[in-house]
Amino acid sequence: MITLEDVRIAAARLEGVAHRTPVLTSRTLDERVGASVFLKAENFQRMGAFKFRGAYNAVRALSENDRARGVVTTSSGNHAQAIALAARLCGTTALIVMPEDAPLSKVAATEGYGASLVRYDRYTQNREELVHSVAEESGRVLIPPYDHPDVMAGQGTTALELIEEVPQLDALLVCTGGGGLLAGCATAGSALLPNLRIFGVEPEAGDDHRRSRLAGERITIAVPRTIADGQQTDAPGELTWPITNRLCEDFLTVTDGEIIDTMRFLFERMKVVVEPSGASALAALFGGGIDLGGLRVGVTLSGGNIDVTRFRELLG
Amino acid sequence: MITLEDVRIAAARLEGVAHRTPVLTSRTLDERVGASVFLKAENFQRMGAFKFRGAYNAVRALSENDRARGVVTTSSGNHAQAIALAARLCGTTALIVMPEDAPLSKVAATEGYGASLVRYDRYTQNREELVHSVAEESGRVLIPPYDHPDVMAGQGTTALELIEEVPQLDALLVCTGGGGLLAGCATAGSALLPNLRIFGVEPEAGDDHRRSRLAGERITIAVPRTIADGQQTDAPGELTWPITNRLCEDFLTVTDGEIIDTMRFLFERMKVVVEPSGASALAALFGGGIDLGGLRVGVTLSGGNIDVTRFRELLG
Repeated sequence: MITLEDVRIAAARLEGVAHRTPVLTSRTLDERVGASVFLKAENFQRMGAFKFRGAYNAVRALSENDRARGVVTTSSGNHAQAIALAARLCGTTALIVMPEDAPLSKVAATEGYGASLVRYDRYTQNREELVHSVAEESGRVLIPPYDHPDVMAGQGTTALELIEEVPQLDALLVCTGGGGLLAGCATAGSALLPNLRIFGVEPEAGDDHRRSRLAGERITIAVPRTIADGQQTDAPGELTWPITNRLCEDFLTVTDGEIIDTMRFLFERMKVVVEPSGASALAALFGGGIDLGGLRVGVTLSGGNIDVTRFRELLG
Repeated sequence: MITLEDVRIAAARLEGVAHRTPVLTSRTLDERVGASVFLKAENFQRMGAFKFRGAYNAVRALSENDRARGVVTTSSGNHAQAIALAARLCGTTALIVMPEDAPLSKVAATEGYGASLVRYDRYTQNREELVHSVAEESGRVLIPPYDHPDVMAGQGTTALELIEEVPQLDALLVCTGGGGLLAGCATAGSALLPNLRIFGVEPEAGDDHRRSRLAGERITIAVPRTIADGQQTDAPGELTWPITNRLCEDFLTVTDGEIIDTMRFLFERMKVVVEPSGASALAALFGGGIDLGGLRVGVTLSGGNIDVTRFRELLG
């Protein structure tokens, strides 16, 4: 379990290192959804996604001895870049276990930050086993993408900043893959605003949180095939789930088509580039599956790492 | 001639109506060009471009009688939207003379703001004659896109805000079509920072400012064919030219290919959507035709009104 204090400690570590990202608003958006919407634009975060917050907090929190061993992790992309950059900023090295079908832009950026890569097939190989064996052999410290207290606390600074800027928030919609961002934001949000209504949003094809809520326990689904490559997790995290299940009112799902329509809206009307996973929370608001009419709603735009080629394919 | 005081009066009119747009920075950008770059992001301005500043200032400055007559203008797009929105906000109506090949998104947006349209062929019809006859017949007040003191003064608030935020600026690069933004920004910039080096940037195919500088007088070229649809003017403005010619160190040109590469950089690395005309000033910095190494350089991103379809075509 993490607390608001853990999130505040993470914020202190991130001060002057992470960007304090802007909160975007739009008259057109508010009219369309009938609510006052505040978009926390983590696509403008360092390396292009909120993942930098948790990764840097976790690497920075290591003892000197542990940091000298170097770090290792597994990620479909943004956590990889985040760990690579965090390692470099903290004066250590990173090894990344990355799926073979990760977006090219994410592979190139990770290598650009100086990390070494080990590739695997996400549909046939078990990444957990692989990353643990790599960690053991290399002697590096494993920093998983979401199931780690310092990672969750770091991601929670997203909501901390949003609420500092927009103190009267009624609801919060958060993009959810493994649940790290959601767990951190729910912890900070519910502590600061006890009446805040918190929702996790995931792709329809990867509705492991929704199914877990319905089943009353953490369940595992087939690896989801969705354009939201940052949300292709097959189960809620072991550490994130007790937090998100307790603090979230509901888990919502969106289709790939709804995500694409939302990316188009963000491009044409708000002039910002958001990757599929990053657009899912706003897509839920457009989808109308939940009525937040008249409320003040915070929404995470969690990342913007998509290249022009992939953008053209998706929005063709 | 306009003065810094005119720009300050415009700023007072725009207070709380126009957005105070953000100034974007990027480590990657600074490393690539070897300078400290400050991007004034007018793609986040109301209706998506700096044009709102000048249009609103001009409509707001009208006497009650003149405002009641309604306004008319001609524009390839952004000034049209700007006048349409300004007219609505000031409680009057707008009639827009617009080329037949204007981007669809700009046509739709202009009509969306409640303006009426008159279309013409920009390669065969004389738009100046047409708009004057429309103004005479309709009894409306003509507000041209750049050759108007209140329009120039309004556009100048772009540089005023930038310098308020970044007071130690060495150079300023401004996208230039007819020269309204450049004239306003050069007026404000040179008054606030007497040593500021000011440059206008235009498409290579539409180098009317560069040729006018070389010729020592305002000259007219064939209507340029370029992807930068906001910069398809064939001559510097009658009112803008004496200002820009006096205050600008030089006029730089960029190719359509350089503009596209810059749009890709802005999309992939900075997560922002900028239309071709809006990317031209930054393209000049990438192009390396000018050495501003080690300096603090302000650059206008003048607009972001491009739809996904057109973006896909250009960056294919």
